[in-house]
Amino acid sequence: MVAYLDNSATTALCKTAREKTVEAITEYYGNPSSLHSVGTAAQKQLDGARAAVAASLSCEPEEIVFTNSGTLANNAAIFGAAYALRRRGNRIVTTCVEHPSVSECMQKLEKEGFEVVYLKVDRSGRIDRQELMQAVNSKTILVSMMFVNNEVGSVMPVELIKSAVRKANAPALIHCDAVQGYGKLPVKPSRLGVDLLSASGHKVHGPKGVGFLYVRKGVRLVPYILGGNQEGKIYSGTQPMPAIMGLWGAVEEFPNLAEQFEHAKLLRDYFVSEAKKIGGIEINSGEDAVPYIINISLPGHPSQTVLNFLSDRGIYVSGGSACSKGHRSKVLTAMGLPPERIDSALRISLSRLTTKADIDMLLCGLESATEQLRRKM
Amino acid sequence: MVAYLDNSATTALCKTAREKTVEAITEYYGNPSSLHSVGTAAQKQLDGARAAVAASLSCEPEEIVFTNSGTLANNAAIFGAAYALRRRGNRIVTTCVEHPSVSECMQKLEKEGFEVVYLKVDRSGRIDRQELMQAVNSKTILVSMMFVNNEVGSVMPVELIKSAVRKANAPALIHCDAVQGYGKLPVKPSRLGVDLLSASGHKVHGPKGVGFLYVRKGVRLVPYILGGNQEGKIYSGTQPMPAIMGLWGAVEEFPNLAEQFEHAKLLRDYFVSEAKKIGGIEINSGEDAVPYIINISLPGHPSQTVLNFLSDRGIYVSGGSACSKGHRSKVLTAMGLPPERIDSALRISLSRLTTKADIDMLLCGLESATEQLRRKM
Repeated sequence: MVAYLDNSATTALCKTAREKTVEAITEYYGNPSSLHSVGTAAQKQLDGARAAVAASLSCEPEEIVFTNSGTLANNAAIFGAAYALRRRGNRIVTTCVEHPSVSECMQKLEKEGFEVVYLKVDRSGRIDRQELMQAVNSKTILVSMMFVNNEVGSVMPVELIKSAVRKANAPALIHCDAVQGYGKLPVKPSRLGVDLLSASGHKVHGPKGVGFLYVRKGVRLVPYILGGNQEGKIYSGTQPMPAIMGLWGAVEEFPNLAEQFEHAKLLRDYFVSEAKKIGGIEINSGEDAVPYIINISLPGHPSQTVLNFLSDRGIYVSGGSACSKGHRSKVLTAMGLPPERIDSALRISLSRLTTKADIDMLLCGLESATEQLRRKM
Repeated sequence: MVAYLDNSATTALCKTAREKTVEAITEYYGNPSSLHSVGTAAQKQLDGARAAVAASLSCEPEEIVFTNSGTLANNAAIFGAAYALRRRGNRIVTTCVEHPSVSECMQKLEKEGFEVVYLKVDRSGRIDRQELMQAVNSKTILVSMMFVNNEVGSVMPVELIKSAVRKANAPALIHCDAVQGYGKLPVKPSRLGVDLLSASGHKVHGPKGVGFLYVRKGVRLVPYILGGNQEGKIYSGTQPMPAIMGLWGAVEEFPNLAEQFEHAKLLRDYFVSEAKKIGGIEINSGEDAVPYIINISLPGHPSQTVLNFLSDRGIYVSGGSACSKGHRSKVLTAMGLPPERIDSALRISLSRLTTKADIDMLLCGLESATEQLRRKM
């Protein structure tokens, strides 16, 4: 028996995702750009996948650009927007807790002369709404903010950006990295008021190797990935059909999001109340964080030690995020947590397939861990 | 019965590629960056794939950077090299018949102030060795040349570049887009004398959604795709495991390249001699082109008309390349072919799975096409 509780790093493929991937590698091997019927058969599948993803966002299929990963969607969005609007201004607003695929792009843009403002977060990983309103000025060309933080699950006030941009009369495009929100919270670009929105397949029980970028109709980006313009002149390269069809399958299996949220909330609340009984466990995620991500600390026990202890028992959690392997968490540091809490942090991340049995196994593992590791000290 | 003769656009997955892809989506769903045992199990598969690809190039596993496509390998190589060496010089040498994923990068670099020299080609699509030697000067920082042209199959003298660079005492890195050569001709970066070499999975009976970049040990690139540095600080994004494992499967099935070449040559020679008997068919590929790509023209009959005629009969060829859908061939134009030959061009592309029956079906289709279409004129 195992308890996979690292769903924010990656998820197992759901049945429909596996089936569609297999269809792609057996029946639809054509290149969607080929003009004969093997090509058009693949193109038809690509259209189907695009329509399904668009429906999941309540947007038009033409607004979906398939990419090869959430990272590539973020790169294409951020550089694409910054270079498209560089003549209209120089300021970019983002947060200090973005994923590296956003923050590394920002650092490059800073080196190129853009002024990047990093909004701070409070002890729960949330930005200050007032600070956001003040940060956006008339020279702001891009605001990029994640929807759900990948380490602690805090939800950002993305829907406020549009009014900040309007108030400042800024030419800014609004980008949202929704990799951790898509498939978990309702993600409707029009309701969020964003122009660009990124997500990834493998975080929602689809395969690795696919992401997408929502690009609001009428928005012009400077293409960052160059070549055959396969994805509407914005993104190039033969489409990763097996992964795209796998994502399609994952989207087809999306459950009712409200019910899924309620399920996760019950498990999270149960975990938190039981964890308190064990003692020695601190909860780093805020109370209003999404229930899918629970960041905890076992002060005095280094993350990797507990992670290994649990892994040996078939319980899989993460220390920070998978994408920052080996580095001290930037997010927990920004939240102002003391070093002993940062160095002992663990991220527990749930999906719709997580059960109470998984949580019980984790609680049992944490109890043994705190006991046995304490004895060794 | 069908005859799929568009293998330079994409290939069907071979059995081992399909099996490995299925393994990836069922057993190895972990994120290779995760530090628990589900992650390390995936990492072990990633290591296996990397070792297999490295063995196919006779290089070290650490020299292989997995990317999501040949296009992304080319983008990462060209921008990575140009930006790494921009302080050492301003000149880049390439050819006028590169794939859009190279030529579009070159155009962007030109806009940024780099001087790009495009080597011309002769009637067979080959560059002049003398012209190459003269084009490289002491300010040259990058030479990028494809190994095998994707439209006509001409083989470029990549192995000459190193001496041109040495003679000019240039700081240049040497990049080779080997997408159409890999798996067909021996591709050994050390023997070719290149620092960077790109290839793609779906051209060699692997899945779409994976490519790789060989980066010679010691070569430093400025990373172009930014994020979690999953692929050795050169390339970011969670690795596309299903496609990477599929590529691994494809590589495992690579046949003896000399025998495969002989097989293709027999089929090509047979096709050419029979096509002459039909009449009205011109061969655009040079005699020393690889036998895997045969570019022909049926002057007077627009490519798309013949392509549709053949497609209706289960014969799949391409008009130009799949990546330049709808545009007049840049390659045939550069070769100096007259417009009526360019507009009636077809690309027939073979793989190791192509049979004499496929060629017979094509010959039969071309014979009917020339007869029936002639009647309609």
